[in-house]
Amino acid sequence: MENQKFALEIPYGTRDFLPVEAAEKRAIEAELAALFAEWGYDEVVTPTIEYLENLTLGTDRDLEQHLFKLFDKDNRTVALRHEMTTPIARLAASRLRDYPQPLKLSYISSAFRYEQTQAGRQCEFHQGGVELMGSATAFADAEVIALAIQGLLRVGLKDFTICLGQVEFVTGIMNQFQLPGSVQEKLKAAMEKHNLVAFGKIVAGLDLPQKAKDTLNQLPLLNGGEEMLQKSYALALNEQSRRALDNLAAIYRLLKSYGAEQYVRFDLGIIRDFSYYTGMVFEAYTPGLGFPLAGGGRYDHLLSEFGTACPATGFAIGIERILLALTRQGLEKPDQPKDVYLSYAAGQEAEAIQRAQQLRGEGKVVELALAAQSQEEAAAMQAAKGYDELVYLG
Amino acid sequence: MENQKFALEIPYGTRDFLPVEAAEKRAIEAELAALFAEWGYDEVVTPTIEYLENLTLGTDRDLEQHLFKLFDKDNRTVALRHEMTTPIARLAASRLRDYPQPLKLSYISSAFRYEQTQAGRQCEFHQGGVELMGSATAFADAEVIALAIQGLLRVGLKDFTICLGQVEFVTGIMNQFQLPGSVQEKLKAAMEKHNLVAFGKIVAGLDLPQKAKDTLNQLPLLNGGEEMLQKSYALALNEQSRRALDNLAAIYRLLKSYGAEQYVRFDLGIIRDFSYYTGMVFEAYTPGLGFPLAGGGRYDHLLSEFGTACPATGFAIGIERILLALTRQGLEKPDQPKDVYLSYAAGQEAEAIQRAQQLRGEGKVVELALAAQSQEEAAAMQAAKGYDELVYLG
Repeated sequence: MENQKFALEIPYGTRDFLPVEAAEKRAIEAELAALFAEWGYDEVVTPTIEYLENLTLGTDRDLEQHLFKLFDKDNRTVALRHEMTTPIARLAASRLRDYPQPLKLSYISSAFRYEQTQAGRQCEFHQGGVELMGSATAFADAEVIALAIQGLLRVGLKDFTICLGQVEFVTGIMNQFQLPGSVQEKLKAAMEKHNLVAFGKIVAGLDLPQKAKDTLNQLPLLNGGEEMLQKSYALALNEQSRRALDNLAAIYRLLKSYGAEQYVRFDLGIIRDFSYYTGMVFEAYTPGLGFPLAGGGRYDHLLSEFGTACPATGFAIGIERILLALTRQGLEKPDQPKDVYLSYAAGQEAEAIQRAQQLRGEGKVVELALAAQSQEEAAAMQAAKGYDELVYLG
Repeated sequence: MENQKFALEIPYGTRDFLPVEAAEKRAIEAELAALFAEWGYDEVVTPTIEYLENLTLGTDRDLEQHLFKLFDKDNRTVALRHEMTTPIARLAASRLRDYPQPLKLSYISSAFRYEQTQAGRQCEFHQGGVELMGSATAFADAEVIALAIQGLLRVGLKDFTICLGQVEFVTGIMNQFQLPGSVQEKLKAAMEKHNLVAFGKIVAGLDLPQKAKDTLNQLPLLNGGEEMLQKSYALALNEQSRRALDNLAAIYRLLKSYGAEQYVRFDLGIIRDFSYYTGMVFEAYTPGLGFPLAGGGRYDHLLSEFGTACPATGFAIGIERILLALTRQGLEKPDQPKDVYLSYAAGQEAEAIQRAQQLRGEGKVVELALAAQSQEEAAAMQAAKGYDELVYLG
């Protein structure tokens, strides 16, 4: 028995999607795929496994411990992909190199990370997203943010906020005080973990005038609307941080043309979890969920790691997180209709088959009984399986 | 440069689906998922990785060398799933144990096997299929075969044959000559590999009367229509092999009720590649493809390996193989429309965004230019990207 139970387990951090859950997942993925196609984004599919050195190009040094690694037949190290931006950058730099730019690509796929799991944070998870490669414009950034907003609306969410930041603003502020790279990394790590105490301690220990420390201490707190953005210019004493604010203002203007500004607020302290971001970054939050539903940003140097300089921007939406948010917020999820349970008395097998085929041809979902039943048995099964109607051939 | 090229590779036996290919894949998967739902099959999704001992339950001893193995955080061996029947059997025996039977389940998913690759045979591949659990009837077998046929028709194939066999017929014949298990396995292995020379050599070496050897030598050659099936009764000298033929005759009768008999022929020498099959087995072939498009069969003992006795039957269709067959046969594949390329002169950004949103709202696929262009540049890009229409705001 001990052994029996054991055999029914699944690995840590993975999950099964049971009938209703899997139908919801398929419907949400289909909506996102349709939306991305309507905006001219072409879907691509890449392998589940990639060479380790490709996945770790341009990303954090501590990424590797979060990867599921294995060996291929030639004893080279491969890993399960942990996200889709790097594989699509590889594709853009190789087989799609001669496609007309900008490349607008989309994906719906699984990804894998070793994590301490909790609801909405699993070791295997599913994402839908886009990568827009070959444009450095604010127009491109506004398009992907607007598309992320449309995606969240399309799958049925109503109450969410896009928090918009710019990594060059943060870096610019740190550079204007000539903080060494190692200190900047420590400060950014604390910001990424939303650890204000650790952040404050690092700042306190710096050899800087009090006014500079005050500026740094404000960084994680700079969130609000257009007015806050305007005020932040007072902190931006060099070109790098000013240009970052100009960029955010330009993106926001375009988001107004999309009629999407009510979903957006600025959060200049946002540091995303991959170090490849170089410009605007954003995360989508919804009440009752302690982690982002979606996130993305600009990454202008990642493709040059693969040998092709190319500015790029994009985002990913977490499919499981959408399902969780819809459930927690009591919102409607896509439905799987169950129309007809078709059963029959002995001797009516051929007629039952033909009737089932006819009803399916009319667009009905029909489950056919696999052996003759009494009408009572049939009615009980119809109820148990949740079909709207019983058709019984007596 | 050497290093550069290296970084752009993908692991042996994997592939990227480029824009048009990925759209075809999505459309085919969506058709199969819709068909399975119409027949009352509920989709499930299981983890990409499973504990090794679950995947190898009830299957061949040499399976393990074909698995992609890795270690989880607890140092337990897990593997990438090599098919979906075993994971779904695990699910049926655990979390779906109390669902009303028969369970009709479907899936669309990736699977992984170390193989020598060729067109249509990759280390990572995609399958759509169903598992019908909780019915031992010929009616259940006929339903899954009819559904496989509908699936192949639905994705656009026209010319294919379902080759139908019964593993109990082969075993029954071997038992009637009291062949020991080890000899039976060798003979079945030769049949599975379609290696008639090896098969003949093993038979020649057996200590049996010539008549028995003649019967055995016919096994791999028994294919044809109803008439051949009737003639095969002359070889079936025990209950086991006779009942297997009765079962095939009953399935065939039901397939006639589906109007599907023109796609079916018997091939009594079919041995599928997994040893869990216990009854009817089938494979779908199409001209120009040297391996099956689809395959399946009855597996009545697999669920008891997971602690729940339950008869079951099902099939899988290979998505890449369908794409390959459609291409080779010059058949139409699902299309990804490209309606409008929308471009604009400087200063028209806001109008262009609103126009794009309006056209998308009308159901059009619209790619929006990411920066102002001249009308000539816009027309060139429309042509390069293959959009039917250019809308230019001057």
